[in-house]
Amino acid sequence: MLVQSKSYKIKLIMNFKEFNNLSKQEAQIALKKCCVSESWVNGMIKYFPFDSPEELIKNAANCWYDNCTEQDWKEAFKGHPKIGDLNSLKQKFAPTKDWANKEQTKVGEADDKILEALSKLNEAYLSKFGYIFIVSATGKSAKEIVDIIQIRLLNTKEDELIIAMGEQHKITVIRLAKLIDDLNVTTDLRSHITTHVLDTSTGIPAKGMPVKLEGFTDGNWKPIAIGITNNDGRIANLLPPGKLLTAGNYQMTFSTEPYYKSENQNGFYPQVNIQFKISDHDHYHVPLLLNPYGYTTYKGS
Amino acid sequence: MLVQSKSYKIKLIMNFKEFNNLSKQEAQIALKKCCVSESWVNGMIKYFPFDSPEELIKNAANCWYDNCTEQDWKEAFKGHPKIGDLNSLKQKFAPTKDWANKEQTKVGEADDKILEALSKLNEAYLSKFGYIFIVSATGKSAKEIVDIIQIRLLNTKEDELIIAMGEQHKITVIRLAKLIDDLNVTTDLRSHITTHVLDTSTGIPAKGMPVKLEGFTDGNWKPIAIGITNNDGRIANLLPPGKLLTAGNYQMTFSTEPYYKSENQNGFYPQVNIQFKISDHDHYHVPLLLNPYGYTTYKGS
Amino acid sequence: MLVQSKSYKIKLIMNFKEFNNLSKQEAQIALKKCCVSESWVNGMIKYFPFDSPEELIKNAANCWYDNCTEQDWKEAFKGHPKIGDLNSLKQKFAPTKDWANKEQTKVGEADDKILEALSKLNEAYLSKFGYIFIVSATGKSAKEIVDIIQIRLLNTKEDELIIAMGEQHKITVIRLAKLIDDLNVTTDLRSHITTHVLDTSTGIPAKGMPVKLEGFTDGNWKPIAIGITNNDGRIANLLPPGKLLTAGNYQMTFSTEPYYKSENQNGFYPQVNIQFKISDHDHYHVPLLLNPYGYTTYKGS
Amino acid sequence: MLVQSKSYKIKLIMNFKEFNNLSKQEAQIALKKCCVSESWVNGMIKYFPFDSPEELIKNAANCWYDNCTEQDWKEAFKGHPKIGDLNSLKQKFAPTKDWANKEQTKVGEADDKILEALSKLNEAYLSKFGYIFIVSATGKSAKEIVDIIQIRLLNTKEDELIIAMGEQHKITVIRLAKLIDDLNVTTDLRSHITTHVLDTSTGIPAKGMPVKLEGFTDGNWKPIAIGITNNDGRIANLLPPGKLLTAGNYQMTFSTEPYYKSENQNGFYPQVNIQFKISDHDHYHVPLLLNPYGYTTYKGS
Repeated sequence: MLVQSKSYKIKLIMNFKEFNNLSKQEAQIALKKCCVSESWVNGMIKYFPFDSPEELIKNAANCWYDNCTEQDWKEAFKGHPKIGDLNSLKQKFAPTKDWANKEQTKVGEADDKILEALSKLNEAYLSKFGYIFIVSATGKSAKEIVDIIQIRLLNTKEDELIIAMGEQHKITVIRLAKLIDDLNVTTDLRSHITTHVLDTSTGIPAKGMPVKLEGFTDGNWKPIAIGITNNDGRIANLLPPGKLLTAGNYQMTFSTEPYYKSENQNGFYPQVNIQFKISDHDHYHVPLLLNPYGYTTYKGS
Repeated sequence: MLVQSKSYKIKLIMNFKEFNNLSKQEAQIALKKCCVSESWVNGMIKYFPFDSPEELIKNAANCWYDNCTEQDWKEAFKGHPKIGDLNSLKQKFAPTKDWANKEQTKVGEADDKILEALSKLNEAYLSKFGYIFIVSATGKSAKEIVDIIQIRLLNTKEDELIIAMGEQHKITVIRLAKLIDDLNVTTDLRSHITTHVLDTSTGIPAKGMPVKLEGFTDGNWKPIAIGITNNDGRIANLLPPGKLLTAGNYQMTFSTEPYYKSENQNGFYPQVNIQFKISDHDHYHVPLLLNPYGYTTYKGS
Repeated sequence: MLVQSKSYKIKLIMNFKEFNNLSKQEAQIALKKCCVSESWVNGMIKYFPFDSPEELIKNAANCWYDNCTEQDWKEAFKGHPKIGDLNSLKQKFAPTKDWANKEQTKVGEADDKILEALSKLNEAYLSKFGYIFIVSATGKSAKEIVDIIQIRLLNTKEDELIIAMGEQHKITVIRLAKLIDDLNVTTDLRSHITTHVLDTSTGIPAKGMPVKLEGFTDGNWKPIAIGITNNDGRIANLLPPGKLLTAGNYQMTFSTEPYYKSENQNGFYPQVNIQFKISDHDHYHVPLLLNPYGYTTYKGS
Repeated sequence: MLVQSKSYKIKLIMNFKEFNNLSKQEAQIALKKCCVSESWVNGMIKYFPFDSPEELIKNAANCWYDNCTEQDWKEAFKGHPKIGDLNSLKQKFAPTKDWANKEQTKVGEADDKILEALSKLNEAYLSKFGYIFIVSATGKSAKEIVDIIQIRLLNTKEDELIIAMGEQHKITVIRLAKLIDDLNVTTDLRSHITTHVLDTSTGIPAKGMPVKLEGFTDGNWKPIAIGITNNDGRIANLLPPGKLLTAGNYQMTFSTEPYYKSENQNGFYPQVNIQFKISDHDHYHVPLLLNPYGYTTYKGS
């Protein structure tokens, strides 16, 4: 696919070697298609070309988390269509239109009532936080996005900004992986923390369960990410690839009560909270075996 | 209560001190009311009077398990009415009639169909094994006794004899505790092994579940006892008080499939088998936390 | 035992019937030996004589929790010697001296360093909260009391008052049970919530582990009680007998990190938090099966 | 790679389409390189060419399990070098020499003592069963093969034949996947049953643990396969791809005692036995969360 963008011709899908062979100007344009923040693009260009795909992904996270400011994050948010608002989706951001549409495929399949609810929640979100609702929507149904936005609406402004900027970066990485087709994000660079919820009373994975990740900082629990279990009961992308948590105490809170209700179970546990220690860059898998009157967790592998 | 028995007047309910103060002849008569085996009574009398209630109970088990033979055990079996056969119950064994009736109270409450089934199973049992079905019936419903007899009918003659003689001794100890009213069997001298089954999908104990205890001897699993969980999901009297298992490997097998069916659950586990090591005379508690698609066991305290 | 107190002769140990047959004046004096708060004693007298021991215990809790004020609670606190300060213990409150000494027996066995630490913590507590440290010390070692006081020192004034007054009431009930010798507090009127911690990596109970109980009220978690597991890993008296929690969401937080350290285990869980729903007056047992890299909880029976 | 074999030129590595385009004679030769049994090769040729890679794999299992006899299985066993006997390895079966060497790579790395033990066990096996020890050695160390052969030596002749022929078929499928390079055995056609053992007292997978799979047939447990957990605690190839178990009761027995010993743990469970129901062709994952005094199993996904 060849795309005419300003005065440069850029092959939008390339492999890592081709990407590294771009001129700095071309690389800047390509990166901006992944995230419109000037600071992030400029931060990335300092390290261009990259030693390896892994280095690219790690730098992408470092530039975003450590070198960008609130202003930069909000600049990036403005580069998105609103999720669920298909009209604005069609008008905004021509070069990435196809991707944005694809990223929101599952939203498109939802029925009208949920889309209306989503639209109202989007408005409420914008009104509370001052920027549009950002979520890595890939693979999520409109219903799941509604569940997530409702939880995130309860956050303070300070907390929500951190979550929104994490989601922004997940989208950036997905776009990087679309741009550079041998960037194996799924297997090589998974989320530092993953989870899995199995319902051992039904024998099947618990899907659609919201999970909140928080870190203990300066005497307080601060939100880091909010995800929702997929059809296999898993959250594989709780953190963006390349984002490594510092050593310390973290907790995941599983919203079990709505799940029990959806399964007509009379559960004993309104929430399940699991606190654990991160001490290195190894992958952490923290699963939950849930049943109405008991649960088990363990450090997975 | 004063009872005229042959030429001796014996106060049937006494305390431990009064029991120890009986003449040997009186003690023999009192003990025979608990178990009619001559060898057992004579074995006990050798140690009479006893240093403590604990010593009495331990000797009762040792005499029965180690010094009695198949003939002695079968002699004791003949001292019982058939469970559920209320006619024979009324005619047989006048001196212990009241106790035997009491021991079978719960049987009396069952409906006719179950009693008929029980009667037929009793016949089948007698016909297969050559002696009447012996079970410590205290606290068990007729339905539970039917479940137990059906499992025990599957045993070989050799295996069943061991189980029947264990049940005989449980009855003996219950009678000893009725005879000597400060013999605190419940708290001081509980079964060497106990179990407890909780259904964590319903949050309530799993009652009426048969559990088989076996020991690994000479390369084979040999049955030791078969019990059934009570209304609190427990089997407190799997072994008679005073009977201590030798060090070695043991297993308990829980009949989960009939339980799942009775709860309309579609369980994954037809049976749950737990193998464990006994290495001393401490109490062993081996509980089961069961749900349809998962279970947990642990060494309790 | 006959004790001369003011102008009344009161037999300090009596049975329930004898207690009910006291004159109101005598009953008032007897109750005041259990708790010096005027409001509580007067509240109790309104219901005197009591229909049953259970009614007495329930009224004791209701009067204390629902009809007494902060002032009343603090009045009761003043009726105590400081835990560990054996000098003041000997001088204060002659009529209840023997009981107070007994309640603190285990403290007396501690070594000097721990008593010094306890003494300093008592000072710090008094200085922060304005009243002496109240704890139901029966069965607790000085080391365990040190662990508890350290946790309670972290509370806000508002939160700590609730915990202190709960402890005060546990002491009151223990004294009521000493006064009226057929008040079977242990079996009939246990704590509405109990817990039990088993370490399944060692196979033995986890003793000395602090556990905090909180209730979710008006959008916040508010402390209710702080206990510590005994030698059998249990906390049987987390709440005073007769105190029933209202329906709602509660959580227990187990301080696992210090336990892991004491066992030289490298545990994954700094704390274990279990949230659950109370919906009736049934007994709730919420146990924890802990190991370094996994844990299980269930609704016990 | 082109190999001259008799009068036919065959490209030994090909894709599925190329394989389907072989003449029947060429296909026969290619299949014989995977398993030398005439009956199996002839059975396969009846279905040649295959509709899909899946069909090929399913037919491979059906021909082997359902249409081959004891004689056919033993014919196939003769087509192998002995594991660990590197001399015979070099002389026997020239065309597949490279593969056989590769399949036994890990064996080659073992130290001399283990190879000697392996050699003696091979002799003992041959002497007991009358054919050489067959095992799918890929990924297994000589130590692990020693552990497996020791367990299999305990089998009866009848039982062991079933296990050996299952191993033979795993090797066949591995060779089919080497022959036809787009046969995605790993992801598409995994073992009907898999397992995973995590040690929750150390937080790491339990590796090198033997696991026996048995099916309940005609009132008896009959062995089906014996595997050993890999470095990640998993057995992914307990059954050959394409082999589907019929509906019924199965059990897995985990040899926990040697594992506890190797970890210097004093475990309560000499073995862990898990019985479960297979009712369809879905994948079954039966994991074990093990610690010294407790364990959990569940139906995974």
